[in-house]
Amino acid sequence: MMTEDIKKKIRDIVGPDNVLDSELDRFGYSYDSSFVPLVPANKPDLVVRPTTTDEVSQVMAIASEYEIPVTPRGAATGRTGGSIPVKGGISLALDRMTKIVELDERNMMVTAEAGIRTFDLYNACAAKGLFYPPDPASWKYSTIGGNVAENSGGMRAVKYGVTKNYVMGLEVVLADGSILRTGGKMIKNVTGYDLTSLFVGSEGTLGVITNVLLRLISMPKKRGTLQIMFRSLDDGCRMIHDMLQDGIVPAASEIMDDICLGVAARRRNIDLPDGAKSAVIIEIDGEDESSLESQTTRIANVARSCEALVFRAAASEKEADELWSIRRGMSSAVATLAPNRFSEDIPVPRDAFPEVVRRIKKIAQKYGFLIAVYGHAGDGNLHPSILCDISKPGEEEKVHHAIEEIFAASLSLGGTLSGEHGIGITKQPYFANAVGEVAVRTMKAVKAALDPKGILNPGKIWL
Amino acid sequence: MMTEDIKKKIRDIVGPDNVLDSELDRFGYSYDSSFVPLVPANKPDLVVRPTTTDEVSQVMAIASEYEIPVTPRGAATGRTGGSIPVKGGISLALDRMTKIVELDERNMMVTAEAGIRTFDLYNACAAKGLFYPPDPASWKYSTIGGNVAENSGGMRAVKYGVTKNYVMGLEVVLADGSILRTGGKMIKNVTGYDLTSLFVGSEGTLGVITNVLLRLISMPKKRGTLQIMFRSLDDGCRMIHDMLQDGIVPAASEIMDDICLGVAARRRNIDLPDGAKSAVIIEIDGEDESSLESQTTRIANVARSCEALVFRAAASEKEADELWSIRRGMSSAVATLAPNRFSEDIPVPRDAFPEVVRRIKKIAQKYGFLIAVYGHAGDGNLHPSILCDISKPGEEEKVHHAIEEIFAASLSLGGTLSGEHGIGITKQPYFANAVGEVAVRTMKAVKAALDPKGILNPGKIWL
Repeated sequence: MMTEDIKKKIRDIVGPDNVLDSELDRFGYSYDSSFVPLVPANKPDLVVRPTTTDEVSQVMAIASEYEIPVTPRGAATGRTGGSIPVKGGISLALDRMTKIVELDERNMMVTAEAGIRTFDLYNACAAKGLFYPPDPASWKYSTIGGNVAENSGGMRAVKYGVTKNYVMGLEVVLADGSILRTGGKMIKNVTGYDLTSLFVGSEGTLGVITNVLLRLISMPKKRGTLQIMFRSLDDGCRMIHDMLQDGIVPAASEIMDDICLGVAARRRNIDLPDGAKSAVIIEIDGEDESSLESQTTRIANVARSCEALVFRAAASEKEADELWSIRRGMSSAVATLAPNRFSEDIPVPRDAFPEVVRRIKKIAQKYGFLIAVYGHAGDGNLHPSILCDISKPGEEEKVHHAIEEIFAASLSLGGTLSGEHGIGITKQPYFANAVGEVAVRTMKAVKAALDPKGILNPGKIWL
Repeated sequence: MMTEDIKKKIRDIVGPDNVLDSELDRFGYSYDSSFVPLVPANKPDLVVRPTTTDEVSQVMAIASEYEIPVTPRGAATGRTGGSIPVKGGISLALDRMTKIVELDERNMMVTAEAGIRTFDLYNACAAKGLFYPPDPASWKYSTIGGNVAENSGGMRAVKYGVTKNYVMGLEVVLADGSILRTGGKMIKNVTGYDLTSLFVGSEGTLGVITNVLLRLISMPKKRGTLQIMFRSLDDGCRMIHDMLQDGIVPAASEIMDDICLGVAARRRNIDLPDGAKSAVIIEIDGEDESSLESQTTRIANVARSCEALVFRAAASEKEADELWSIRRGMSSAVATLAPNRFSEDIPVPRDAFPEVVRRIKKIAQKYGFLIAVYGHAGDGNLHPSILCDISKPGEEEKVHHAIEEIFAASLSLGGTLSGEHGIGITKQPYFANAVGEVAVRTMKAVKAALDPKGILNPGKIWL
């Protein structure tokens, strides 16, 4: 429990305006964008909003001294409860640390404070012709620190990778308040353990990320969008697989099933061709028009061999935006199909994509739910959405059984629990089974080594 | 000290033929490809050559029980002493575990035992049209497990990255003999800490890598080689920088200074153009001839703007091989210039490449050595070779002072100690200064958590 004396010490560090402790404010920091139910126990005792690494360091030193739980928080757009302070204590909000420290055009790298919004960071780089590719769905709201802590993905992963592929170095405040700096602007660096990668995706359990160094790439000069429809989800998956096998790596390749296609068509008054059961949307990019043309021709050939119903290349940026807005709006569109939706995030070997979808459809039948499927077929990461009404007695329990079976299907096909969202709270029960007992033991040993008092984001990842 | 009883237990596990303990055999396992002097103290008590993960696990369990040091070893091609058993005990040679377990063409991934030679692995994949890009200079001899343990680089890093960018999962025997499996075939995976990356580059100090899962990419259909000469090293560096800034990312872009150019010309009877002070060799690749042509034209334009003396595109594969063999032979060519050579491996931000070379040349003048410089200018990783004669009194001490100053120059320009070779023994004295006290403490905590008895490759990385 935090005494008034401790609260005063923290106020003295960050200033009274940057500490929130009203009932309402603390409630506002008790939830995120996941499906974790609102409960009073998840309210922090204190919300602290530092503006410098030094303030974070001082706050952590006090938290360590008095063994107060600290849950770091960016914009709380997480989908698994990572920023929910389930053990009370301090909600450490990084959202006031929003500066771009340096945009190094010559080395094509950017240093920014953890609280900057990913989209703002993207735009600042884009203004100089530099490209930060990771584009999680939340990127207009989420912070780069949160993206790093969760190792966020996005639609461009198939060609450009995920957040971890761009993190070159970090500034991290450790549990005891000491400030660790990892990595640097060297493209090759084998000077000791890769601590940078250890913190990426560690969900705030090993340290508070205050500063990130990211590499950038040259902004592709030309972009194009293709939309292709198929008679079956299998045909769509096969097309994406054959395309990649042929050496064509698009910037993004997304798939959606007939449920998704149907709801999109209804909401946007689109006439679907007869028999369309899946759609693939592809972004290609390159240095010039001829590169786009050659990619388009090759993809069209692959699509034809997979018996595509429709092949459409967007003729303008406006048309491309329209096609992508269907995909980007899919999460909210699907949500209109039922009172409740539980969205999952499972990655499988790319090859297993069609089979895991078939198994999910069988699970849907078994439990009598509609399960819509869309996702990043190019990288094997899909988002099944269980559509249900948990006001019905027994429905929520059925949902959890269905989720358990979806995870089991993923594991049995060589997949795992999360491609983008992390484990947080929502996937904890399934974690040990997914990674194995030796891995859990190893991770716990690392956690205990870096945070011996267990104050950093306690109650997450493993049970 | 290993008793006869313990040795017998180990013989019983791997079979008597797979344990070596003669004086001569143990001597053969007391050194690697670094400049670490041969000393009797570096002989292991026993050389153990297991063929299965299970055998490795049983050997580690015994080593753990009796607290016997274990130094894992691939092909001992390391440049910093990583596989030298400085504390005696067991030299655990993985070179009999050479199987390709699975070549999964559909998912474009390969699973192999740690002891397979990198070049054999490359060829097996290439035969199926799949490309494993990392190409450390040692790849015809080195093992993939060693490459992973050192996070080996190579010439293709500028476009394709280093070993860590391809490791999707590992099987690792931990200090106590338990078998850890990390990662998987999922392209996106945020299920707990990134243990895979923790083991990559950990130099055998955290576990024994027995099995690796690597992602592959589609083999580029066309390749081309360009050779460009300049009036100064600065012009060459500027050309590489401008090319990358313009969005042209070659598969490799190597630079060599006038000393390297001179020795290559003499050995190969090449007529150098008047005033040539540096050469850049570039490999480009792509899907078709027109892509190569367009890259060649753009690179030629950049070269012209940097006042290139000669621009030559190899007209045949034979000519390309000739050009690359100059670069590949550089290490041995440079070695002919003096009785002794100490080669370093420092990475700096790409931007700082010309400046660090200028400082190295000043260090050379100060100490009266010749220092030849070549390296991977595209990724900021250079190999300065100090050419000397340590039979002269005081010369070796001067070499070590010069190396110290080279490291200081690298650090002051935002670089570090090692881009490809690791820390091992040779760079230990400089390590804490390079990464900082908090990082050393953090790494030691991780080490103690995973190897509480300190039996895995003791005496490496930090002092």
